[in-house]
Amino acid sequence: MYLTQALHRAVQQHPDRPATVCGDRTRTFAELAERVSRLAGALRGLGVAEGDRVAYLGLSSDRFLEYYLATWWAGAVVNPVNVRWAAEEIGYSLEDSETGVLVVDDTFAPMVPALRTRWPGLHTVLHAGDGAAPEGLPSWDVLAGSGKPVPDTRRGGDELAGLWYTGGTTGFPKGVMLSHANLLVCAYGMGASGVFGSDAPLRYLHVAPMFHLADLAGSIGTMVLGGTHVMVPAFAPVPVMDALERHAVTHTVLIPIMIQALADHPELSGRDLTALRQVVYGGSPIAQAVLDRARKALPSAEFLQAYGQTELSAVATVLGAAEHEDAGRPHLLRTGGRAAPHAEVRIVGTDGNEVPRGRSGEIAVRGGHVMLGYWRRPEETAAVLREGWMHTGDVGRMDDEGYVEILDRLKDMIITGGENVYSTEVENAVAGHPAVANCAVVGLPDEVWGERVHAVVVLRDGADATVEEIREHAKATIAGYKAPRTVEFVDALPATSTGKVLKRELRARAAGTG
Amino acid sequence: MYLTQALHRAVQQHPDRPATVCGDRTRTFAELAERVSRLAGALRGLGVAEGDRVAYLGLSSDRFLEYYLATWWAGAVVNPVNVRWAAEEIGYSLEDSETGVLVVDDTFAPMVPALRTRWPGLHTVLHAGDGAAPEGLPSWDVLAGSGKPVPDTRRGGDELAGLWYTGGTTGFPKGVMLSHANLLVCAYGMGASGVFGSDAPLRYLHVAPMFHLADLAGSIGTMVLGGTHVMVPAFAPVPVMDALERHAVTHTVLIPIMIQALADHPELSGRDLTALRQVVYGGSPIAQAVLDRARKALPSAEFLQAYGQTELSAVATVLGAAEHEDAGRPHLLRTGGRAAPHAEVRIVGTDGNEVPRGRSGEIAVRGGHVMLGYWRRPEETAAVLREGWMHTGDVGRMDDEGYVEILDRLKDMIITGGENVYSTEVENAVAGHPAVANCAVVGLPDEVWGERVHAVVVLRDGADATVEEIREHAKATIAGYKAPRTVEFVDALPATSTGKVLKRELRARAAGTG
Repeated sequence: MYLTQALHRAVQQHPDRPATVCGDRTRTFAELAERVSRLAGALRGLGVAEGDRVAYLGLSSDRFLEYYLATWWAGAVVNPVNVRWAAEEIGYSLEDSETGVLVVDDTFAPMVPALRTRWPGLHTVLHAGDGAAPEGLPSWDVLAGSGKPVPDTRRGGDELAGLWYTGGTTGFPKGVMLSHANLLVCAYGMGASGVFGSDAPLRYLHVAPMFHLADLAGSIGTMVLGGTHVMVPAFAPVPVMDALERHAVTHTVLIPIMIQALADHPELSGRDLTALRQVVYGGSPIAQAVLDRARKALPSAEFLQAYGQTELSAVATVLGAAEHEDAGRPHLLRTGGRAAPHAEVRIVGTDGNEVPRGRSGEIAVRGGHVMLGYWRRPEETAAVLREGWMHTGDVGRMDDEGYVEILDRLKDMIITGGENVYSTEVENAVAGHPAVANCAVVGLPDEVWGERVHAVVVLRDGADATVEEIREHAKATIAGYKAPRTVEFVDALPATSTGKVLKRELRARAAGTG
Repeated sequence: MYLTQALHRAVQQHPDRPATVCGDRTRTFAELAERVSRLAGALRGLGVAEGDRVAYLGLSSDRFLEYYLATWWAGAVVNPVNVRWAAEEIGYSLEDSETGVLVVDDTFAPMVPALRTRWPGLHTVLHAGDGAAPEGLPSWDVLAGSGKPVPDTRRGGDELAGLWYTGGTTGFPKGVMLSHANLLVCAYGMGASGVFGSDAPLRYLHVAPMFHLADLAGSIGTMVLGGTHVMVPAFAPVPVMDALERHAVTHTVLIPIMIQALADHPELSGRDLTALRQVVYGGSPIAQAVLDRARKALPSAEFLQAYGQTELSAVATVLGAAEHEDAGRPHLLRTGGRAAPHAEVRIVGTDGNEVPRGRSGEIAVRGGHVMLGYWRRPEETAAVLREGWMHTGDVGRMDDEGYVEILDRLKDMIITGGENVYSTEVENAVAGHPAVANCAVVGLPDEVWGERVHAVVVLRDGADATVEEIREHAKATIAGYKAPRTVEFVDALPATSTGKVLKRELRARAAGTG
């Protein structure tokens, strides 16, 4: 079980089929394999030994896929960098993983001096871009043409395939270690559950950033079935529509706000997107209204939801296409589906035992797709990986048919007067007030209630609302004890570069001003 | 990655769905899991420790599936016995594997005394049958009801899941060691290639014997997707049609002669078999005429072919449904398809290197489904498993698109005057003569040609043919050097209990009389 296996199969079965389509550049599987074997040879020549880490910092492109495959071909370990991080966080992750070789594209080449200063162990930086290679950075394309090809090491099974650093917003990032088997088991399980499966050749559009597991899961699924990879550098409605139409894309992975942006776009109706057979989305459930508009806008496509996290090689549960069409059970859309064919899923209490159906608890997952652990962090690993079960840190509830509703992050859940309150539920209730532009809900220490529900609200420009109005509005949709006891108005919420609200900071601020 | 995972998932998602249907007896997934946990407890109580072997000798039934699951639940290793073997061969395999516990059904209970004599280490024999349990044999059903349930060990990954003894006809049988990962990777890969995949619940009919990997591969595919298992004790056209119709079976695994027997059966036309969606067949390619008749007789079903062997957890290549419908490429039907999504396949020469496309050589296969090895036979293992590649002992030829034609067993191939001759090709040519009832072709030592092509022929009752007529008939369809140089007429061919011709014996006889 090795991640390069599919490339050998594709070259054997359809060498002349396009493997990558990036802008105006198309390469066949025969060309891709030739480049990959030369790039792997070049990496070995640069001193990359089996098990060494090789990082990539760049936007989505055909070269990013070559990087994954060449690193595995050489028997090395990928370390794809989160492009949204600052140089300090990236440098930390490179140092922590002792990564000696980094590949950068045109967009991120300017960051190289800062990274070299932060982590002097970075002995080689390669340039994978369309522009001229900056001084001192060997060119990816030159190596792909002139590197001495080497045979595939076919490293695989439980061997480490890559590190994916996560959690940069809640302390030091941790490197999630995934094996070849982890990633392939997830891809196979998705395939067996009907994701990507089809007799006709598939063409997959990479929309989510290629460093992210959400995209990689789709990418490996595409590889396994010998499909064509189409890349756009990042999400924007018009370029995505262009790519979908021009390359007759059949499959893609999106998040609901991207689906909404596409479905509502005025240019969509003029496009021929009938090749699109399947849209897999994740990150959050989809609103019924958005799904209805998306179905109308993309009538040839079926929709599937996947829930998971990096530690699970991306996917634990799937809400299938038929379940999206089940008019008699619209509540299913609020769930993340149920355990995929490669996973076992449970809701557990603080004692680690399974709780009765309908009760909330932490979502725990077991299977061949569960990470090996966090890189060189045995304590953090032991804290989440217990007797084979990955404790996700997500709070969920399972119904009698195994469907899992994802309620909150465990650390954002509020316990007030002995009752669990999910911050997301309160946020949805508060956000429904017409004057509210944005809001976040946290628990603050409270002598009477243990914690009290506290809302931090950003009002719309020119709009106005009192604390009491916000509370009353919330009480109209959720139980009284869930409604915020205190409300604070601010100009903006502290957030990461990805737009994730920093609740830790909100709690710290409130404690300081308390 | 553990083989009991799917049972937990099924109980979680659809506890009341039928899990097993055997004759008039139906059990739900909740009932199956209850029985399995009790049977596992009973096995532990009988002294079965993790890694111990437990054997089953019986016809297909719901209890056979319980045996697989309970053994894995207990953390033990299955050892399903080939029901066609004599007591001597079975006893040898039980001794070789040091199996202490055997389960027998009504049909095979009478063999127990002989097995106990042959292998005194057999400390416990359980009776899994409908009749009264013979004296001294604890009853499977009693244990399933009264055993103390134990938690699932969830043993899995690269741990040994079972031994499958093969090769009894060519010397001492060898135990093929397959891990949980081996079996699941094959099932997932089949799922990803469209086998069994579907949104609607599947109902699988066990037709091939349940000790055999051909059935187990289908069975695990069914488990992974939470489908219902329907059992018939053995193949016979009418009971199979009955089961297909009565239980609205959607999927099954057959061999071409079974398909032919069904398609040509006069009772078929009166049956409603429209639930049948997919027939997977293996063992040999299907004749175009048989496929045409089968399509007409079973218009709702699509046909897929799978090629492999026990050492490959059953499957290496697949010829998909669309390829069966490809009127422009009828030659594909003569192939076993191409590498499945979990496999890498090559044709190699005697030096182990890949040969050019179109040239014949040994079929070698690599991937997560390749066996761990032969039980306690490091030399035999090393002879076939080299650098991760399983050398199948089958001769094949691959075309430019990766389709593999299976030509012969390597040991049955004849080299005459420096040319390779496939005994199967010559047999087909000879069998075309109207007077020939049966034939086998072997190579005999020859001073001039190295080996010469020798045909052993059984004539039809009352028919007659001369050596020269047989040779002339063969030459009309195959090249002159392939036609038999010598022909021998016999009353019957020496064969195993499964009908496999013993070519070893034919060669020995010819040498003796030579």
